[in-house]
Formats: sequence, structure tokens, C-alpha cells
Amino acid sequence: MRYITAGESHGEALVAIIEGLPSNLFIDVEFINNELQRRQGGYGRGGRMAIEKDEVHIVSGVRHGKTIGAPLTLEIINRDYTNWKDKEIPPIARPRPGHADLAGAIKYNQRDIRNILERSSARETAARVAIGSVAKLLLKELNISIKSKVLEIGGVKTEEEWIKVIEEAKAKGDTLGGIIEIVIEGVPIGLGSHTQWDRKLDALLSYHIMSVQAIKGVEFGLGFEAAKRPGSLVHDEIYYDKEKGFYRKTNNAGGIEGGISNGSPIVIKAAMKPIPTLLKPLTSIDINTKEEVKAAYERSDVTAVEAAACVLEAVCAWVIAEESLKKFGGDSIEELKRNYISYLEYVRNF
Amino acid sequence: MRYITAGESHGEALVAIIEGLPSNLFIDVEFINNELQRRQGGYGRGGRMAIEKDEVHIVSGVRHGKTIGAPLTLEIINRDYTNWKDKEIPPIARPRPGHADLAGAIKYNQRDIRNILERSSARETAARVAIGSVAKLLLKELNISIKSKVLEIGGVKTEEEWIKVIEEAKAKGDTLGGIIEIVIEGVPIGLGSHTQWDRKLDALLSYHIMSVQAIKGVEFGLGFEAAKRPGSLVHDEIYYDKEKGFYRKTNNAGGIEGGISNGSPIVIKAAMKPIPTLLKPLTSIDINTKEEVKAAYERSDVTAVEAAACVLEAVCAWVIAEESLKKFGGDSIEELKRNYISYLEYVRNF
Amino acid sequence: MRYITAGESHGEALVAIIEGLPSNLFIDVEFINNELQRRQGGYGRGGRMAIEKDEVHIVSGVRHGKTIGAPLTLEIINRDYTNWKDKEIPPIARPRPGHADLAGAIKYNQRDIRNILERSSARETAARVAIGSVAKLLLKELNISIKSKVLEIGGVKTEEEWIKVIEEAKAKGDTLGGIIEIVIEGVPIGLGSHTQWDRKLDALLSYHIMSVQAIKGVEFGLGFEAAKRPGSLVHDEIYYDKEKGFYRKTNNAGGIEGGISNGSPIVIKAAMKPIPTLLKPLTSIDINTKEEVKAAYERSDVTAVEAAACVLEAVCAWVIAEESLKKFGGDSIEELKRNYISYLEYVRNF
Amino acid sequence: MRYITAGESHGEALVAIIEGLPSNLFIDVEFINNELQRRQGGYGRGGRMAIEKDEVHIVSGVRHGKTIGAPLTLEIINRDYTNWKDKEIPPIARPRPGHADLAGAIKYNQRDIRNILERSSARETAARVAIGSVAKLLLKELNISIKSKVLEIGGVKTEEEWIKVIEEAKAKGDTLGGIIEIVIEGVPIGLGSHTQWDRKLDALLSYHIMSVQAIKGVEFGLGFEAAKRPGSLVHDEIYYDKEKGFYRKTNNAGGIEGGISNGSPIVIKAAMKPIPTLLKPLTSIDINTKEEVKAAYERSDVTAVEAAACVLEAVCAWVIAEESLKKFGGDSIEELKRNYISYLEYVRNF
Repeated sequence: MRYITAGESHGEALVAIIEGLPSNLFIDVEFINNELQRRQGGYGRGGRMAIEKDEVHIVSGVRHGKTIGAPLTLEIINRDYTNWKDKEIPPIARPRPGHADLAGAIKYNQRDIRNILERSSARETAARVAIGSVAKLLLKELNISIKSKVLEIGGVKTEEEWIKVIEEAKAKGDTLGGIIEIVIEGVPIGLGSHTQWDRKLDALLSYHIMSVQAIKGVEFGLGFEAAKRPGSLVHDEIYYDKEKGFYRKTNNAGGIEGGISNGSPIVIKAAMKPIPTLLKPLTSIDINTKEEVKAAYERSDVTAVEAAACVLEAVCAWVIAEESLKKFGGDSIEELKRNYISYLEYVRNF
Repeated sequence: MRYITAGESHGEALVAIIEGLPSNLFIDVEFINNELQRRQGGYGRGGRMAIEKDEVHIVSGVRHGKTIGAPLTLEIINRDYTNWKDKEIPPIARPRPGHADLAGAIKYNQRDIRNILERSSARETAARVAIGSVAKLLLKELNISIKSKVLEIGGVKTEEEWIKVIEEAKAKGDTLGGIIEIVIEGVPIGLGSHTQWDRKLDALLSYHIMSVQAIKGVEFGLGFEAAKRPGSLVHDEIYYDKEKGFYRKTNNAGGIEGGISNGSPIVIKAAMKPIPTLLKPLTSIDINTKEEVKAAYERSDVTAVEAAACVLEAVCAWVIAEESLKKFGGDSIEELKRNYISYLEYVRNF
Repeated sequence: MRYITAGESHGEALVAIIEGLPSNLFIDVEFINNELQRRQGGYGRGGRMAIEKDEVHIVSGVRHGKTIGAPLTLEIINRDYTNWKDKEIPPIARPRPGHADLAGAIKYNQRDIRNILERSSARETAARVAIGSVAKLLLKELNISIKSKVLEIGGVKTEEEWIKVIEEAKAKGDTLGGIIEIVIEGVPIGLGSHTQWDRKLDALLSYHIMSVQAIKGVEFGLGFEAAKRPGSLVHDEIYYDKEKGFYRKTNNAGGIEGGISNGSPIVIKAAMKPIPTLLKPLTSIDINTKEEVKAAYERSDVTAVEAAACVLEAVCAWVIAEESLKKFGGDSIEELKRNYISYLEYVRNF
Repeated sequence: MRYITAGESHGEALVAIIEGLPSNLFIDVEFINNELQRRQGGYGRGGRMAIEKDEVHIVSGVRHGKTIGAPLTLEIINRDYTNWKDKEIPPIARPRPGHADLAGAIKYNQRDIRNILERSSARETAARVAIGSVAKLLLKELNISIKSKVLEIGGVKTEEEWIKVIEEAKAKGDTLGGIIEIVIEGVPIGLGSHTQWDRKLDALLSYHIMSVQAIKGVEFGLGFEAAKRPGSLVHDEIYYDKEKGFYRKTNNAGGIEGGISNGSPIVIKAAMKPIPTLLKPLTSIDINTKEEVKAAYERSDVTAVEAAACVLEAVCAWVIAEESLKKFGGDSIEELKRNYISYLEYVRNF
């Protein structure tokens, strides 16, 4: 299974193609749209969210509500596009610190930084949420579920405090990041592999998580805290129970040992930096004149940590779905489930 | 460029094949061996290090000291193998918490856990150091260098304290992890890409870093700290100087913005958990009898943070070398450098 | 560079995403549309061609006519879709010999064969022609060109005879295939590689060519004839001329030796089987009743050899473009060309 | 599953790593060695075959005779190496037409053509036969078998004639190619896919086949002949029988329709060109002086069609094994077979 996303922030649409889905998976469009709307919510979002109200349109890969083995095309129209398409849009020459603006313009030899920011924009994460929703639908068939929780915004930990720091930041023309926890439950023992570097489940999850806009750190289980404790207070002792099979009383490993899921919930934390587009802009350089200027301002939010939580759920769902398909095979949901169930039975009898 | 490693901890040898190296790269075997020996050093290592004294043997891909475009085979003999090969080795039934032991045995349907631990062992990182050394040799041609520093062992920050906590852990039959910083200097603006999730430089680095045995967290620049500060105290303002071109006075981003290298040093921190093999073993379950037992003990170290630092340098070197080849092309070192130099000139004139 | 296509024959649209194109490539939409119309032409086509009149719509990846490094989304609307979307379409239970119908239905657990044929249909090749047209635009920048020629239809070799055998086949409710030659000129010495199986240029071309619907054979240069002659009458002797550099007087190898382009035109022949949808249908089995029936009939052509020639040009253009990017690198057309020109100069002085 | 081969013709050894094999596959070394010796046989081979007598050495991935999920390293020592390693070997400046010599030297910027021919040599196919033998062992577990037959050598079709034309060619210092048929039996319905170009089974097989040294053409079933006949005489009508399920009375498609295996034997023909190293060498150019010379001579055979047949079996076995693992999943042979058997039962009841 693989996917590619396409589309610019103010282009006609975001498009994603998912290739390799099994057939006969019911594509619950309402569920996908709910997920898209979760991504648009959260305190601290700017005006664009009101315009957008994202909805997925399925262009290919589904008949009578179910996948047919063919590639799925997901399209999310940019409602803002009609306002943009005939406008004369002046080029941007003042790169924003913290964005791809400057490095992107140099890499791709662009004098109008809009040609970079249109694609580097977090708008792209709408496509990933749609993709992740499809992965979640597949995982539901295997009784695997994914949740997230915002742990911190701007360094504080309660919803009450969040509102306060967000309002303060807004007043100052500043922005905030935060910390998110993702928990994946129901993952069977045995996804990922210790046998080759690129097959380790935590490595794969990190690859996808760190690819999400604004994420600067990721950790599994105790994470950085594990580096401080002695081994006797880190590793999760192994127990056995006829009902549960092998199990743990602690989950400091975050559900992955040696690159393989161990049957405990997978627990990940990720750090999101503050949005780099500031209403009160930072110092920058005009790429043409080389003079010191203030960075460009592009409509933006104060914070988007809650949105990022949805996106992180989505990319994690993808990894688990993909690894499930690799391990269990199957071209139809029926075949996948047949193989899956027979594996679970094998595990119970190991 | 790609690589695969193979080999078990007490097998005949570790083997790695690197495919896609440009020709005419001088392979400095002494340099590779020095790197291998750096990996074996550090306070807190156990007895195996004395036995090993790793040396690389180049089986293919080099003539008269230089690559010829053909795949490079690197072999590191396990000196311990001769002691093992004719021994009767009893099967292991007591999985060690924190290792791939239990999940691996179930995934691969093995009753002798040795069949898992032989491959999941951190012994494999010797192959990665050899591979990374080759990448470093390539990066030297482009004036890119990689260093690492141990920041913490067992939660303390000075060498003096390290010795103390290591000795204490050793006395208790316990183990320690730590925190490592990697710094990559000389990376040009423009490696990685914002255009697709799987091409982002920080995502690629995370993928490789998190694939290293025992790593549980990774962060770029400020990392988790960035989640706590307002945007105005995070993003690195942009300056310009005729000599230096575009530059920054801070490096909170850790050298990567929007998934693209921005010309500042790339700064990464990684968290290593304590080694999961404890002299005073943890509680486990016999996979055959299902009775509670103490986990198996396999000769091991108290801590290997300094070794892990070498390994992390190696995997980061690989990523930067691979991305350089993708961006600059070239089948010979001469062609790569020609393209590289012409790009650097273009950047200066942007 | 990579691409995925999506879309069903009677779905809303065909969609393709191309990822990894350099920036600043002018996307000549008229040229792409001309290529799409070439695909729709040729003697022996059925009624659908009249309905279709394909045109590409570019959803993403282009601003002011040029690529921006972002993924290109190409969409080709199925004009027939509006006629189909609200129709009650009866399921198909009678698989057509020569199509994916039966094997596809079993693989993907489908009782309505339409769920297979909608995707296996050669309609998908419109997407590939659009993709290939983009590749051709890139190759034009490197002075590389691709042409094709129909050598045979239904076993005969002149246009006059073709019309005759096509009319005869039509009258009988039968179909015809043919043989196509593709010639790629201007390919520099050095694309592909002898060093690993999956990097050989002829292997890559075969992979793409054989993936085109209805292609059953492929050969390079003399091809099967080379198997009959002695080596002294096969291998192309090497000459040198100050102007031309190394050159050949013959081209029995078809431009590739040891998996590497050798500077001669790349010459490929491919065999297309007759279209498997016959107006006078073949014997089949109802997949539900298991009774002997006549295969389903789905509107189709008598022959599509001329169309296939366009498609083969397209997939070959893709391979050469992709290999050029691998060898020469470059994120913008300017960087690609700079590297390319410096390589050509190097070759001249070798 | 994936593999990389490494090693030069007169280097120390050929090495291959296979990654992704299921565990608990019995690795029958004797079988692999028999296959290696089949590759060395056949009328028309030169002196090297007597020296070689290839034997595989398994460096990693196997314990107690069975795979453990870890990468398999296969090593084939070049017995000739001891004679070569301390020799002063003069550089080669006279490229042989039909080899990678000239294009390779230019691509990789080599003045000594030996640096190219050492890797482009068909010696590499020994590694592929070893790899293919492992694939065959896996396929045996699924009751899939692969055979080959030489159909022609030098344009003639009987063994008697072969000996004659080979002796004639030898006397003239010339070489011969031929045509080979590969037949794969027992492949279930449903390998490969029509849904995306790069997943079609015939495309994958062509990719691997055309990557074999000296292969210039490939066709499936009727192949080029299919291009000449009307559809009614090409497509294989579908029948059903309670015992056999769906079946065909003809196999003009060669077992693949729409990129998917259809349950009939897969039948492939491949054309091998004459060996390009001629005892009576062809005209060439000295790459340094640019003067007309005779091509270099490197010890070689008159023909190697029988050897190539073994190699083609090997690469086809690989493709079928890899596709089986993709479709059926499974980390151990037991899991693979469990899933496979349950699929076969499903097919019987379709």
C-alpha cells in the first residue's frame, strides 16, 4: 500500500491517491468528513477554517460504497479557490523564518516564494487526514483503534490555561505549539520487524510522524525519560494469563520492543513547534534586494495543536494499516480478515 | 543508494551491501576500522568488546582502493564465532523484557529465542558503522562533516558523574541509557523536500535514527522545548551577508525548515534507553511452560551510550550522503563534485 | 520521480499524480492534448473514441504555466460519465477470455465483473499518455525525442492491407493486434547501469512496456533474430570520429549494451495481441451458475495498434526521463540542464 | 522480499543478501549447489567452468538448517581468485562490442575497462541462480514448480544440430545465442494485479528476465505470434469443471491475463544474443589513443544458452515467490501456508 498527495494551498483541490487497498472495504464518507472537520476545529484557529469546511470527494476506486481493489482517489476542493483564481497575486520575496520559504525557493529556483509556500503549507494535512481516515476504516475491521490527546499548549497543561495563553499570544501577534500523545490500541503482537533497519515499527512511525508539518520531536513510551532511569525501572516485565496470554503491567516501552509491536498499546508523544507565520512578523531578507525586511504574512492561526493531533492519528493509522497488510496479505477485506483471525488464534496458542 | 545488512551476533560475520555508490571514491579502510573501534569504546562496556576488535573486510566493489560503481560488500568477521560454532547451545525460552525476544519469537514462530536475539542484537550496529563510514568518506568530498556528543548518561551530565553512576549500576546488576547530540556541518541549502511526506529531510533522519537499537526518542533543534515557547522565541530570523549569503544568528530549527536543510548545522538529539539485558534479570515467562521465571542473561554491557553515538553519526551520514546523491546525481565522484560545485555557485548568486 | 494512475473506465475521471518533477518545466497543455488525441485516432477504433475527445486538466503542480517542484495532478474527465452515473447497471457474470475479468474477480472477491473491467480497461492508457507527454516535455529540454511506427496489423505490413484486414475482421466480429516499433533518439551514453539487476535500462523499459494493456512481447534491436545469428553478425563494432565521438555503423543492439544506453538510438519492438473483447463473443462460464455462456460484450474497437504505439512512446519517455533525473539530479530544469551539459562535455572529452 | 547481489568476476566472491524470507524455510544446500552446477553445464562452455565448480556458502540467516526471518547471505567463492589476487593485471583499453565495456567506462569514468567488465560479466548470474534456488525451495512448499527448455541454439532446433553449429562457431572463433522457454506450473489464480502498472505479473517477470545478461527479447504465450492472428484464434476460452474449477483448453495467453495469473501454466520465451566476447575479435577503438584496434579477449564460452535457461528459471522463481508473499503474507512458512491453503479453498468455492 502507498499514497501520494498533491495540491496547493490555494489551488483547485488537494488530491490523494491510495494504491493497494484491499477490495470490499466500506468507505464511510461521513466518517472521513467528520475527521476532516475535527482537523479544522480547536481553539486558536484563524479565519480560514470558517471558509473551508472540508469535504472529501471520491473520484475513483469505489463502487456501491466499497473499494474494488483499484486505486482510491480522494479530492478535497479548496473552497477558497474561486476567490483566488482570477486574482492578480503579487509575488512574495520575503521568506518567513521557520517555513520552507527560503530553502525551498533556492532549491527549486523560484523568485516568487508563493510557489513554495503553496505546497509546504499545512493545508496539505487535510489530504493526510482523509487518507488516514481510510486507514482507520480498515483498522476497524481488525479491531484496532487510534486516539490522541493534547498534553500541552504553549507549555501549559489544562484547557483553562490553554485558552489564556492562546489569547495572550493572539494579542501579541505571536503563536504557540504544544505536545500531543497518540495511543493505538488493539495492535497484535508482531507488526514491524527487528530484522532490517527499515522495517522497524517505531522507525516507520517516526518517519511518518516527523513528516507532519511543524513536528520537531517524537518519542515512544517513556521516551527521553527512559534515558534517565536505570534499566530495572524501564523495561516492562513479562506476565502470562490464560485469558490475556502474555501481557505487561507497565508500558514504558510504548508498545514496541526491538522494532516489533508487543501487544501493549502503542504510545507516542510528538512535539509541535509554534506556527511560523506570525502576525507580528520576524526579521527577514528580501530575496531580490537582499535588504532586511519583515517576513511576509499569510493568513494563519495562533495555534493548531488540536488539528495536528488529528493529523498524527491519521499518519499513525496509515502505518499500522500498511504493516497489517504486509504481514497478513489479502486482496479483499475477507481474505485479510481470514488471515488475521487465523494469526490471532495462533498467537493465543503459542 | 541503498543498503542491506545481514548477520547474526554469534554468526560467522556481519555483512552489508551498499548499492549505488559513485565510482572513484577512495575507500579508506583505516578510517572505517577507526570508526569501528570508536563504536567498541566507551566506559561501561562488557567483556565482548575485548574479544571483538572489529575490522572491515571489503569483499567487492573496490579496485586499487577505489569504488568502481559496483556494489560494495563489507564484511566484519565475528571473532567469537570460532568459539561458538561447534558448541551445543541450549535453546532460550525466557524472553528478556525490553528486547525483541518475545514479540519476535511469536512473529517468526520460534521456540528458541536465540533465533531472534541473534539478529536483534545491537551487534548489527557494527555493520551500520561501517556503512556510515563509507558515507562519511563520500561526504568528506563535499566538505560535510558529522560529529556527536554524549550529553547525559543515566540522567547526569559530566564525565565524572558518568563513571560514578555506571559503577553504581554495575554493582547493582543494572544498566543505563543516555542522551546523544549529533551535529552535521556543511550541509548545503536544499537537501530534502517539502513537496511530499516521504522526502522531508527530518522525516528521513528520524526514520534512520529510530531504527537504531534502543533509541526511544528523537528531536531536531529545540525539539520538545520548541513546543513550550512562543513562535517569536523559536523561529530563526533570516540575515544576509555578502560573504556568507543568507544566514541565521540562532539555530532553534536545528538546520531544517519545511523538511529542507537551510544551511545551518543540523542538530539532533536522541534518547537511548538502558540496555535491556540485566545482570540481575527481570521477571519473565518461560514460553514453553508459561511459568514465571527470571529473564535469560546474555553477556552484555552496563551502558553503550558512547557506542550509540557512533552509530547515530553513521546513520545520519548515510542519509545526508543519499540525499546528496539524489539531488546532485553523478555516477563518479568527479561528476558528483562537478554538479555540487556548480550548485554551490548558483546558491551564492541566488 | 514516480507516478500512480487512478480511475475507472466509466468513472468520473482518470487521475494521475507525478511526483518528483523538477521545477520550471513548461507544461504545454496543447501538446499533451495533441498526444491524447493521437491515442484516440487510428483506423479500426469503435464508437467510444467519438465520445471521448480527451483533454487534460491540471489540478496541481503548475503556476503560470510552469512546474513548481510540487506534485503534478493530471485529470482526464470521462465525458461518458454523465451518461452513466445515474444508470442502473446490471452486474456482469460472464468473464471475457483474454481480459483480467475472471482472475481479477477471484483475486478481489467480486461477483460483478464490472468492478474489475472498469479498472483493467485500456482506458487507463489515456492517463499514461498524459504522463508520458510530460516526460516528453522534459526530454525535449535534453534534446531527446521519441517516435513510433506501426510495423504490422493482423500480420500484414502496409497501410493498404491494414484497412482490408481490419474491415474483414470487423465484418466477422473479430479483432486484430499488431507490431509496433519505438525509436528513442538523442539518449546520451550512460543511462541505466550494469551494476545491479534492477537498474538495467532494457529491464526498466521492458517493465514499463509489458505493463501496457495487451502487450505480449518486447525485444531490443535485433531481438529474437539475434538469437539466430552468430556473434560476428550481431555485435556492433565500435568506431571513433572527432566530430561524433564513439559511434557505430550498425545498431543491432538497439542502443543498449550491458543494461546501459550506448549512444545509438534505442530501438524496441513490441507485440500487441488482438483486443480480447469480441463482437462475436467467445465461450465462457457464468461465474454464478457455472454454466457455459458467451462472454459479455463491452463496447470496443476492432484494433488499437496505433493507439498502443502512442502509449508505448509515453511509457518509454517516462523511463528515459526518470533515468535522466537519476543520473543528472537537479531540482529545477536549470539545474538539470546545467548538469546534463557538463556531462555531455565530459563525454566529448573522454 | 528483496535482494541485492554483489561481487566481481575475478573478485574474492559473489555475495547476495535476501531480505524478507519467512522463517522456518528449510534451506537445502545440496539443492542450491545442484542448481549452481546446472548453470555451469551445457555444451559449448569454455575453460572457466572446469575451474569454478560453484558452491554456496551460507553466511547468515539460517540456524539448524532453517531460516530464522533474518536476512540470508549467500556467498559463492571465486575459486579463480587465488590465481588473480597478486597478479599484476594490465588495464584494458579496447572495449568489446556488445558488452557494457564502452558505455560503462564512460558512465563511471574508468580508464581501465576491467573495472566495468568485472561486474557486468555473466559471472554474476551464479548469485542469481543461488537466490532463485532459495525461491524455488519456498515455491516447493506451495507446490509451484519451474522448468526450462532450450528451444534453439544458433537458429537450429535439435540437440544434434546444436553440437554441429557450436563446433562450427568454435572453429571460426565465433559465438551463438538461442531461445529458451520457461514454464511455471501450479501458480494459483491471482498473483499480480491489473490495478497499477507496476504490479502486473507479466511486467514484473519481464523486468527480471530482461535484467539477465544477454537477453534481448521476451514474450508470453503466443507472444509475437499473437500479433498476427485474429482475436478469435488467440484468446483462451473459459471452461468449468467441478474437479478442476475454471480452466482452459488452450494457453495462448501463457497463463497471464490482465497482469494476473489465470491458473494456467505461465509460459515465457526469451531470446539470448550470442556471447559478445569473440575469440576472433571485432573492430573496436582504443579508448586512450582513439585508434582502431581489435577488441580485448577475455576467456569466454562459445555459447551459454543452457546456462541462461537456469538463470531464467531462477529469476522467474524469484518473482513468483515474491508475489506469493505479497498476496499471502506470513512471517513463517507455517503462516504463509496457512493463508495459502485457505485461499485455495476459497478459490475452489468461488
